[in-house]
Amino acid sequence: MSFEAFPLGQPAFSTHIIDRAAHLRLDEGKLAELAAAPSSRAIVICRDGLVVSFEGTAARALLSIDEAVQCGANPGMVFLGLRDEAALFAMGMSRDAADALAVSDHFVVADLRGLATRGALAVADLSAIAIAKSMVNWHQRHGYCANCGGRSHMKEGGWKRVCPACKAEHFPRTDPVVIMLVTSGDNCLLGRQKQFPVGMYSCLAGFVEAAETFEDAVRREILEEAGIRCGAVSYYQTQPWPYPSSLMIGCTAEALNQDIVVDGLELEHARWFSRDEVAAMLARQHPDGLTLPHPFAIAHHLVRRWIEDKAGAK
Amino acid sequence: MSFEAFPLGQPAFSTHIIDRAAHLRLDEGKLAELAAAPSSRAIVICRDGLVVSFEGTAARALLSIDEAVQCGANPGMVFLGLRDEAALFAMGMSRDAADALAVSDHFVVADLRGLATRGALAVADLSAIAIAKSMVNWHQRHGYCANCGGRSHMKEGGWKRVCPACKAEHFPRTDPVVIMLVTSGDNCLLGRQKQFPVGMYSCLAGFVEAAETFEDAVRREILEEAGIRCGAVSYYQTQPWPYPSSLMIGCTAEALNQDIVVDGLELEHARWFSRDEVAAMLARQHPDGLTLPHPFAIAHHLVRRWIEDKAGAK
Repeated sequence: MSFEAFPLGQPAFSTHIIDRAAHLRLDEGKLAELAAAPSSRAIVICRDGLVVSFEGTAARALLSIDEAVQCGANPGMVFLGLRDEAALFAMGMSRDAADALAVSDHFVVADLRGLATRGALAVADLSAIAIAKSMVNWHQRHGYCANCGGRSHMKEGGWKRVCPACKAEHFPRTDPVVIMLVTSGDNCLLGRQKQFPVGMYSCLAGFVEAAETFEDAVRREILEEAGIRCGAVSYYQTQPWPYPSSLMIGCTAEALNQDIVVDGLELEHARWFSRDEVAAMLARQHPDGLTLPHPFAIAHHLVRRWIEDKAGAK
Repeated sequence: MSFEAFPLGQPAFSTHIIDRAAHLRLDEGKLAELAAAPSSRAIVICRDGLVVSFEGTAARALLSIDEAVQCGANPGMVFLGLRDEAALFAMGMSRDAADALAVSDHFVVADLRGLATRGALAVADLSAIAIAKSMVNWHQRHGYCANCGGRSHMKEGGWKRVCPACKAEHFPRTDPVVIMLVTSGDNCLLGRQKQFPVGMYSCLAGFVEAAETFEDAVRREILEEAGIRCGAVSYYQTQPWPYPSSLMIGCTAEALNQDIVVDGLELEHARWFSRDEVAAMLARQHPDGLTLPHPFAIAHHLVRRWIEDKAGAK
């Protein structure tokens, strides 16, 4: 398998396609009209999976509203926006309904990541699928008011929940996560977590905490996980990561020391890798079979850019 | 009043001082020991205010634990971390307790922003105060499980809430917000919201939405609020903004058109400003009395950098 099968020069979910048309969220009449329009489409999410129809090896994720209802999607619809003048909605699905689909000839609930990494989904649909997954996962875990415990209700096309008892308003979460390639001259720091595939190493990462800048979050995480202090931190790009609502903030950072002390909690191992070794991993020709994340993930692009920038500079 | 009274060359809350010492959050025995240590300090938050003791014009925000309890702080303590080996905690306070402090000779509940902008708080304390405010505000609005409606409980030194009924875990929110200086050659776009002080203009801003990159959020917000399409977007820096849990992501963006169409919802007015005009606003010498945000806010620094970079390039 070659990484090049993945069709994006960008990490997944980071290519903007949809017009969110936020002004329509307040227009209940227009939303009802769009929900009934034959041109409208729904993305149906069940936890980490989505409902698709296979046409050969290609998976179609944009269902007609009728198809979504026939599949057993829940009635609540999140308005995602417009694409080519057609409205896109997200709908959730219970596990029971997903199980019932096992006997369907037309639709299956498939793992999003698996579909995306093998190129089965249309690239143009990935950003809408990411919004759909974030939003549906949020509604599924936020049916009650965190302020008073009462049942809350969807409003504004699903972009807000309101508590009728205490009047509190609740908005979807977006959880910033820093992910960083730490370098020290011609070496970079990569680590692995226990649950990674055998031989895979990646960039270190961690949630940004309350009242913390990205730069401080990068330095804190690297120090906590690997005992490395960092100086300059540079931002690269962000990748929406709907598991369930993270936003990966890709950075590079310069190490100030070399002696790694792995915490054993987040990481099971970390070490310095030379450019030649990383280039071999990118080419899937590392002598020990070590690998890097798939181009689906921003970690791949952080590493690839580091290799290619230097190659370009020679 | 001169802006220079503000003691930071950085926006408020963005200077890292505290060691969060996250490994101690799991050590209940150690946290209990620290909570009883005479060297430990508490920051007491009541909504947008904090409890301080004035010594002349200087406001002391770090209270002893005994002082915090005497002031009527709630018993729940969030472990913020270590500074100079002393533990810092955050504590909340009810409105009733805050009202009762009105007769205190020693302590007052004062508005955080007012204290910070007039330089009454020690700069070294601002980042810990921001963490304290974010965390206390989060606990105050998240006493119930959003998943099942049951009462949730603080765990891990306040960095997590757990629901005993459904076992769901809840973590503090950090809400990314993009704030951007849009430029078109030697002009920049500034706007004003209805609630701004008379004559004040600032950078445009808005929440990053579910599954959205920063760059797309910048372009979407500028288009929605002002009808301007943007091309290249560059990241500048982040500022924690604990109202209650925002993280301001400062960017610059290049406009592709000049014809502003204000939405009338977020903004009441927006227009292009020349470098000379902005320089006069920074110097508080604008002929019409127009002003910019205080250096407390990242907007000030985005504008100042644009002026100073050009001055440096001449």
